[in-house]
Amino acid sequence: MPRRAPHALRPVTIAPHPISHPEGSALVCFGDTQVLCCASVEERVPPWLQGRGRGWVSAEYDMLPRATTTRSSRDSHRGKISGRTQEIGRLIGRALRSVVHLPALGERLITVDCDVLQADGGTRCAAITGGYVALALAIAHLEEGDKIKAGALPGRVAAVAVGILADGPQLDLDYSMDARAAVDLNVVMAADASLVEVQGTGEQRPFSRQELDDMLDLAFGALPQLLAAQDAALAIPYAARRPRGSAGSPAA
Amino acid sequence: MPRRAPHALRPVTIAPHPISHPEGSALVCFGDTQVLCCASVEERVPPWLQGRGRGWVSAEYDMLPRATTTRSSRDSHRGKISGRTQEIGRLIGRALRSVVHLPALGERLITVDCDVLQADGGTRCAAITGGYVALALAIAHLEEGDKIKAGALPGRVAAVAVGILADGPQLDLDYSMDARAAVDLNVVMAADASLVEVQGTGEQRPFSRQELDDMLDLAFGALPQLLAAQDAALAIPYAARRPRGSAGSPAA
Amino acid sequence: MPRRAPHALRPVTIAPHPISHPEGSALVCFGDTQVLCCASVEERVPPWLQGRGRGWVSAEYDMLPRATTTRSSRDSHRGKISGRTQEIGRLIGRALRSVVHLPALGERLITVDCDVLQADGGTRCAAITGGYVALALAIAHLEEGDKIKAGALPGRVAAVAVGILADGPQLDLDYSMDARAAVDLNVVMAADASLVEVQGTGEQRPFSRQELDDMLDLAFGALPQLLAAQDAALAIPYAARRPRGSAGSPAA
Amino acid sequence: MPRRAPHALRPVTIAPHPISHPEGSALVCFGDTQVLCCASVEERVPPWLQGRGRGWVSAEYDMLPRATTTRSSRDSHRGKISGRTQEIGRLIGRALRSVVHLPALGERLITVDCDVLQADGGTRCAAITGGYVALALAIAHLEEGDKIKAGALPGRVAAVAVGILADGPQLDLDYSMDARAAVDLNVVMAADASLVEVQGTGEQRPFSRQELDDMLDLAFGALPQLLAAQDAALAIPYAARRPRGSAGSPAA
Amino acid sequence: MPRRAPHALRPVTIAPHPISHPEGSALVCFGDTQVLCCASVEERVPPWLQGRGRGWVSAEYDMLPRATTTRSSRDSHRGKISGRTQEIGRLIGRALRSVVHLPALGERLITVDCDVLQADGGTRCAAITGGYVALALAIAHLEEGDKIKAGALPGRVAAVAVGILADGPQLDLDYSMDARAAVDLNVVMAADASLVEVQGTGEQRPFSRQELDDMLDLAFGALPQLLAAQDAALAIPYAARRPRGSAGSPAA
Amino acid sequence: MPRRAPHALRPVTIAPHPISHPEGSALVCFGDTQVLCCASVEERVPPWLQGRGRGWVSAEYDMLPRATTTRSSRDSHRGKISGRTQEIGRLIGRALRSVVHLPALGERLITVDCDVLQADGGTRCAAITGGYVALALAIAHLEEGDKIKAGALPGRVAAVAVGILADGPQLDLDYSMDARAAVDLNVVMAADASLVEVQGTGEQRPFSRQELDDMLDLAFGALPQLLAAQDAALAIPYAARRPRGSAGSPAA
Repeated sequence: MPRRAPHALRPVTIAPHPISHPEGSALVCFGDTQVLCCASVEERVPPWLQGRGRGWVSAEYDMLPRATTTRSSRDSHRGKISGRTQEIGRLIGRALRSVVHLPALGERLITVDCDVLQADGGTRCAAITGGYVALALAIAHLEEGDKIKAGALPGRVAAVAVGILADGPQLDLDYSMDARAAVDLNVVMAADASLVEVQGTGEQRPFSRQELDDMLDLAFGALPQLLAAQDAALAIPYAARRPRGSAGSPAA
Repeated sequence: MPRRAPHALRPVTIAPHPISHPEGSALVCFGDTQVLCCASVEERVPPWLQGRGRGWVSAEYDMLPRATTTRSSRDSHRGKISGRTQEIGRLIGRALRSVVHLPALGERLITVDCDVLQADGGTRCAAITGGYVALALAIAHLEEGDKIKAGALPGRVAAVAVGILADGPQLDLDYSMDARAAVDLNVVMAADASLVEVQGTGEQRPFSRQELDDMLDLAFGALPQLLAAQDAALAIPYAARRPRGSAGSPAA
Repeated sequence: MPRRAPHALRPVTIAPHPISHPEGSALVCFGDTQVLCCASVEERVPPWLQGRGRGWVSAEYDMLPRATTTRSSRDSHRGKISGRTQEIGRLIGRALRSVVHLPALGERLITVDCDVLQADGGTRCAAITGGYVALALAIAHLEEGDKIKAGALPGRVAAVAVGILADGPQLDLDYSMDARAAVDLNVVMAADASLVEVQGTGEQRPFSRQELDDMLDLAFGALPQLLAAQDAALAIPYAARRPRGSAGSPAA
Repeated sequence: MPRRAPHALRPVTIAPHPISHPEGSALVCFGDTQVLCCASVEERVPPWLQGRGRGWVSAEYDMLPRATTTRSSRDSHRGKISGRTQEIGRLIGRALRSVVHLPALGERLITVDCDVLQADGGTRCAAITGGYVALALAIAHLEEGDKIKAGALPGRVAAVAVGILADGPQLDLDYSMDARAAVDLNVVMAADASLVEVQGTGEQRPFSRQELDDMLDLAFGALPQLLAAQDAALAIPYAARRPRGSAGSPAA
Repeated sequence: MPRRAPHALRPVTIAPHPISHPEGSALVCFGDTQVLCCASVEERVPPWLQGRGRGWVSAEYDMLPRATTTRSSRDSHRGKISGRTQEIGRLIGRALRSVVHLPALGERLITVDCDVLQADGGTRCAAITGGYVALALAIAHLEEGDKIKAGALPGRVAAVAVGILADGPQLDLDYSMDARAAVDLNVVMAADASLVEVQGTGEQRPFSRQELDDMLDLAFGALPQLLAAQDAALAIPYAARRPRGSAGSPAA
Repeated sequence: MPRRAPHALRPVTIAPHPISHPEGSALVCFGDTQVLCCASVEERVPPWLQGRGRGWVSAEYDMLPRATTTRSSRDSHRGKISGRTQEIGRLIGRALRSVVHLPALGERLITVDCDVLQADGGTRCAAITGGYVALALAIAHLEEGDKIKAGALPGRVAAVAVGILADGPQLDLDYSMDARAAVDLNVVMAADASLVEVQGTGEQRPFSRQELDDMLDLAFGALPQLLAAQDAALAIPYAARRPRGSAGSPAA
């Protein structure tokens, strides 16, 4: 199998409404990485936000124990949440909040749960890209129910990882690439090609500002394709949501 | 929609190998209840079993936060595992161990993770029925790799819930039935129509021995269909397992 | 010592009011198994039940570290409650709630603590049988204080374990029997010989429906004797409760 | 009831071997305060003591939830051990170690569990006084089994609380006295009338050195009676220990 | 270096306001032992004190991981607070409360955090002596802001450790002395030479009442010097507190 | 007070050896932000690195409760480590490891504890800049003791925060600036002006690539001054380390 081109994404698909309880849900795949994103609406806000007349969006990230090549213990069995798990949940939450007009939500909490079913690199970026779809569906659900007015979701956000391999920069690292990348960069982008968040780490060596620029070029080059995958998922009208009581599989 | 017949199961399907990392995996659906079962093989046993020359099978059960109609907190965020979660994991583990010849495994641990993606009643019984398939695939994988000889899995196990509604007993309760059932019975069965485990609770009132018998009749009546669903999943030869590197969705 | 007959209970005694602080308490012995049951009344209900005008009964089960033949760590030192401990507490709570008319309690919580002082098999069944006495004494205390009207405790509940040994079924397994039993069944019974809860496990092999029937016959055969032990404990009038300030031992 | 004399202990009794699993056990009563003390021998030492050829004695203290006038949550349910609980366990451990010749134990750990069944003041002092008996019985058991030579327990330790009430010092405070005492002193004494540990707190006001002396006088005045209660418990020969399999209550 | 005289303290210094956020703070040194004490005022009381019109003072004690000669794990990483840590925090809190007129505080909570930067014996006594200064500065701050009237701090408290070495009693043990002391005594003193708390432990052997007296003599002999160090710290007028925004080091 | 120039750092000072137990320590101040950094050497590696012949460097970050303008609870009292705390510790660890030649350490673990005594913005960047000095001193200590050869620390690392305020980019945000910055960027730099890690977040709005470049310009412009502060701290010869037994304050 020839190596994927440096500027090429793996196949990116986002299936809307894979399960029926959440107000919004999406199954996002970046190649073999699969993340189930569920947006849940609650008629409350965290204690520190009560009485301010605006809402909140937060995110939680986790992996199923065998999403990875070897089995990991559940955080609940170890009695504490791993630093990595919390750190990624905080990143996803910041990214999604950046595109929401929180006062338009009223005093509501939307929690976006991103659970990795299968991990093959890039899980946090897939979670942001698919989490946006789950969030958008939940907000559309609120609008259709006349609970909020239009305008709660003025922005759009998507993300992709880039790295530097032995022969140069590579977009959308899978696990085997990630394991040998000298530098790793996660880029969270708004639809107008501005930056929502950037996190770059020299895993094996420091990197130059030129290398940073080259990696950002690759990330922004992929933005249209990521937005298109979101568009495709959101184009399915909400009424097409599978009614409860019919059997179906997550990716049906 | 006419009510389901008292002796009728919801549609039961078991898809083998929905994801590619685990040695064995299955996505089991009892109607809208969906449970992802992953069997992971490790070349070690728990400390209390070391040096005895035999293996162990354990199970862990959990629900994704929005598998239910309203969102639940993750156990890991509350800092402890709920009693219900642990209790069901222990039940699944006992059921699966009952059909394994542990000395034939050698000093190996097989952990069967049962994660509920969507809950609509009967999750523990679905987990046992689908967990058996994940376990059988993992053991087949060990046999094909010549790590163990044939004979490690002499038995077969499947389970179903039965309850008593206002108008009499009903097989395979969904969530709305379960919420109004006077009595709830989980029946874990071996292939020869004997009992592996039985747990019955008078949720609203005590129940008579005659009612217990009627419920057991319904459960054993469904056994052939449950075994057939397992057969269908296991008939897909192991070589058909999707190779790593190809994109795919859990239920593809 | 000749083996106990298959249908014979060990000596069963229930001493009321072994200690003086709780509203109701009982020290129950099934042979060498000793469980201290204390029912505590609080003028509050759990948050999820507030404002509904009815009460709640819950139970907690634990063992002293050296109740067993070898010492066990305290759950509090391990930082989490064992699954077995929680599971048994939930069972006892369900069993006791099945005989209480919760609206008659008003917004009150009765917690029944069952602490095993010495374990020799059958601790959960002893806890249910003795816990009923502690609960009945606490409810009588509320009635005598004119806090509630009569009728809060319309039912009666008792429990016993049965197992299948090499030479057939045996009632009321002690620890050494339990360790070698092929099948283990816990039967929670109402006074009219109906079932409140039944939990049967094939520890070494599956069991037939005939065997289940035989075990239930043994359990229900012992019901009159269990009820008589409760009667004996409750016949001691409440006024005989030892006043605070007098020295006394738990089993006086 | 006339007030107890300032120099008078409440009735102090120590019943040996109330339960049969531990190597040594005692039920100690200081008036209505009842503490079950169990000494467990294990053929191991803590990791930091391995390979040094000597043993260790530690203690754990806890209260049953309804030992007190109002129910307390279990530490295990709150997920952490209270500071008070740990502090008292550490005190008991130091007191008991002060009379043991640790090298004579060999690499063995003796854990003395002190569980308060009923609390009416002075629980920590009762636990030390009764814990000594449990420890002595466990060491006698090791000597009788020829596992260790004589000489492992060269000392003797007992304890009592003293306080200052409105009308002067009072020995052995019960709960109602303790709640109104201005000063509270716990005195741990060796048989030769020397001090093993002294802890005094001005709960309501500071206290003078003269008051400290007066309180110590009361404590040492009670020492002979405490030693006599231990003697009485230890005079029951070990062979009188109730064999397993006979029914009995803790205080029989 | 000649040995320090038995009745001699190490150099004792207390620097007020080493950092600028807390309402009161002090850096106390007993020789090489350094403890940063910060008193924080909050306009709330613990739940059990609400509506009673009076305040509360509590203390928390901890050590930085490398305050000691070898590194210790953080309690937060081990997931629980060590018994020693809690025990000392409780001691400091009792000592400081003994000199406060709680009703004069109104419904306010003052928390005194005592964090050991460098440990060389006597940390709990240094924390009490320096914690008093932090508390006094916080109360002065409340008085100057006209939030409370004068009179909230009627007393004065200081503490020192004493021990018995091979050649007799020694005041103010450093770590190397403490490690070889036969007896260890912590003495918390009020300004009028009365006792607030006394805790004495026979680490290697019991001790006589005469030895207790000798140690108390040494402790009270050092009281004037401890009070003088507090006076020196408090004589620096509050207006000299470094304003926020200017750079400075803790001990400037 | 005129506003600080956009390209101006606050006063940056690094005092070596503020305390005497750690192999290396530094008190770093960025304006009013003060962080105590202690590097501890242990003759062991984490379990997953055993037998590989190389060492490891990790970091832990925490804040004293009153380092901030209002008091925060200790993580140890809440029973879990906050996500922010863990995330920053992981960042510091990655930054410091990037400049160490791990095989040269042998099987040794160096833990760099960064405890914030006073927080006024930029604590993580101060911790990296000062943590480098503590690490360098610890490695020099190992070299002087002939435990390792020269060459274990081939690189140099320092960090600074940059943000975008209403009137443009600003270097080295203090707390009041940070609270109103639209964008926040942490830049970890190697001595050759390459990037070790970059983390940028659009707190209030996305940011353009031009803005990213402008912020990086400010950060790299400050690098010489940060390196000079490290040089000044390291120029103090190790022999000047204060001997144990002399009194001294952290910043002396």
